[in-house]
Amino acid sequence: MASTSSLPALDASRLSISLTETPFPIPTGKTTTKAHTDHLLIVSWTSTQGWSAPQIVPYRPLSLPPTASVLHYATSCYEGTKLYRGYDGKLRVFRLLDNCRRMKDSATRASMPAPDPNELSKLVKELCRVEGPRWLPSETSKGKFLYIRPTIIGIDADLALHVAKEVLLYVVLVTWPENANSPTAIGDKETLPGFKLWASPEDSVRAWPGGTGNHKVSANYGPALKAHSEAEKNGFDQVLWLHGTDRMVTEAGGSNFFVIWKTKDGVLELVTAPLDSGLILPGITRRSILELARTRFNITSKWELDGRTVLATAVNVEEKDFMIVDLIEASEDGRLLAVFVAGTANFVRPVTEINVHSHSIHIDYDAIPHAALLRKWLADMMYGIEESQWTEVIND
Amino acid sequence: MASTSSLPALDASRLSISLTETPFPIPTGKTTTKAHTDHLLIVSWTSTQGWSAPQIVPYRPLSLPPTASVLHYATSCYEGTKLYRGYDGKLRVFRLLDNCRRMKDSATRASMPAPDPNELSKLVKELCRVEGPRWLPSETSKGKFLYIRPTIIGIDADLALHVAKEVLLYVVLVTWPENANSPTAIGDKETLPGFKLWASPEDSVRAWPGGTGNHKVSANYGPALKAHSEAEKNGFDQVLWLHGTDRMVTEAGGSNFFVIWKTKDGVLELVTAPLDSGLILPGITRRSILELARTRFNITSKWELDGRTVLATAVNVEEKDFMIVDLIEASEDGRLLAVFVAGTANFVRPVTEINVHSHSIHIDYDAIPHAALLRKWLADMMYGIEESQWTEVIND
Repeated sequence: MASTSSLPALDASRLSISLTETPFPIPTGKTTTKAHTDHLLIVSWTSTQGWSAPQIVPYRPLSLPPTASVLHYATSCYEGTKLYRGYDGKLRVFRLLDNCRRMKDSATRASMPAPDPNELSKLVKELCRVEGPRWLPSETSKGKFLYIRPTIIGIDADLALHVAKEVLLYVVLVTWPENANSPTAIGDKETLPGFKLWASPEDSVRAWPGGTGNHKVSANYGPALKAHSEAEKNGFDQVLWLHGTDRMVTEAGGSNFFVIWKTKDGVLELVTAPLDSGLILPGITRRSILELARTRFNITSKWELDGRTVLATAVNVEEKDFMIVDLIEASEDGRLLAVFVAGTANFVRPVTEINVHSHSIHIDYDAIPHAALLRKWLADMMYGIEESQWTEVIND
Repeated sequence: MASTSSLPALDASRLSISLTETPFPIPTGKTTTKAHTDHLLIVSWTSTQGWSAPQIVPYRPLSLPPTASVLHYATSCYEGTKLYRGYDGKLRVFRLLDNCRRMKDSATRASMPAPDPNELSKLVKELCRVEGPRWLPSETSKGKFLYIRPTIIGIDADLALHVAKEVLLYVVLVTWPENANSPTAIGDKETLPGFKLWASPEDSVRAWPGGTGNHKVSANYGPALKAHSEAEKNGFDQVLWLHGTDRMVTEAGGSNFFVIWKTKDGVLELVTAPLDSGLILPGITRRSILELARTRFNITSKWELDGRTVLATAVNVEEKDFMIVDLIEASEDGRLLAVFVAGTANFVRPVTEINVHSHSIHIDYDAIPHAALLRKWLADMMYGIEESQWTEVIND
């Protein structure tokens, strides 16, 4: 076997593009998560040959051996990010390189080859350039987006359990329901109803120290479906994952979880779980929210929101452990002012109810404007209304 | 959507068989885990149509959408069991129904449809009847076996995270290195060398309460590869999974872990981790060993082993928690008499070394005959030397 260091690395300059002659019909009507675009970016890797030349090819099913590693041993990791059609007609990605860096970390945790983040980022942008014009036409798609899913799977046809010697890296673009991400939905309870969260039962635990809760590996998700379907059956949208006998609040469904409350000392505080426990995903939206809140909520200020002028009181921004009992107590004391979740799939979404084992916490949708402001600021960047270092125009 | 109860259940009587016209060459030379037989058993299920008619078809790759649930969310569970060619020329399976029952439990934990164990068992046996004559010819394969892998995967082409609405149940048979299961290897250090185990590092955990460690779901395996490859790099065969700050001993690699030691009170004891923690897999081999040990090691007796007569001292059989420090202490006191792992893939395998973070425990390969006897008794049943209620002849 050749030494690993001498094997070909992932190299975007080797990309070849083969366009389809039979593009799919663009779906009409209600947008779902089921429609994909016309092409697939695909690269393979083996432990003896390194990375192959990347290809953009007409969308096709994957042909996998029934004994493929990913089907039995969850050798898989992925990313989620979006391609935005701005109000200025330009296509943008948002902190894409951060996603590609996280994918490198996830692949390493899953004992799979880690693609170079810069090369992966270039390849994702190439696929976006191919699909953008037809799937997000500049005239009719302003304020719309596609969801981008880079994925790495182990494809060894060998049932002996070992580190994958053959993998496939691929990227697909799919449509996604619009109200999860539309800037026009800001603060509108009709188009953007608040999430109802269901606290995880004690016998269902998402993550553990030394596990994979802080990486985007497939193994985090299948086992979570049991509690998720229990939540849905009870009329709730997502699970709020609590941890340990203390019932520490970690994250919600596939999103990070944020609270704005007054402390017992009367200090207004924006709180989310810290990364150092290794239990929660280091979300790109999470980081963006923390950075924005720290720079814009550091003093009480007036802002424009949805045609109104609103006052946002200054908040302390804290990444720290907190327990569900703290949340219940704050609610009972009238100190719980806002709860929201944030992530790529659900963007920034108000939470209006949390069910904690037959106890219900209700939260005002819009008692304070902070969550709606964060949502607006991010959407403004994504759609080119606000200039930002976090976005990159890909079709200039 | 039709009500679930009215949908077609898994039904082995609906099986159709389409035989290949181009069988694969039977591999020669050293047996690997990479060769599969000529056919595949396959059944699909959807939430609106229930189970389809099962089919045995020529072996073929699976065609999956790049957005298939299993590739992103580890919606997958499986089983491992074996087909044995006896010394009497008969084909046997071993406690197959127990595997099919466990698959029902695993599927339920993974929020997937649970196949009826009796119907699944019938289907597996049908596939074995198709493959047995060519892949384990009665004249030349006595004492040989094939590995059986039933698998259920979620195949919804929808990236929204939800319980799988479409799944594929399939069964493949593959070859497996012989020394892992050959009765001729009993007590032979050359053909069956002892395993060397590497205690899991504190930052790598296999399972936790409320997780999936007690179910055979794919999500348990990919995250375990990091520690496994660290073990291999250090010259060890498998990881010994320790849990919690107490470093409780749970299981080894993909096998259950057994110790025979003298307690401080001088009682000879066979110990393995209990099932009630939810941390370990309820192994079929584990259960068989406990049942055999309880009935045959209850009094000190003489047994035939490999042409010799050996004396097996009576042992107490215990399923209870024990810590790595107990193992170290027993080793230092000279009370640690035997360590072995047991499971379908590795059968019953002596352990001769355990590395616990730079501390090494060495164990005699054959200080006492108990592990070799358990191995012999099970192999004798599997290969028709001893009549057993645990085996079923499938080609009478």
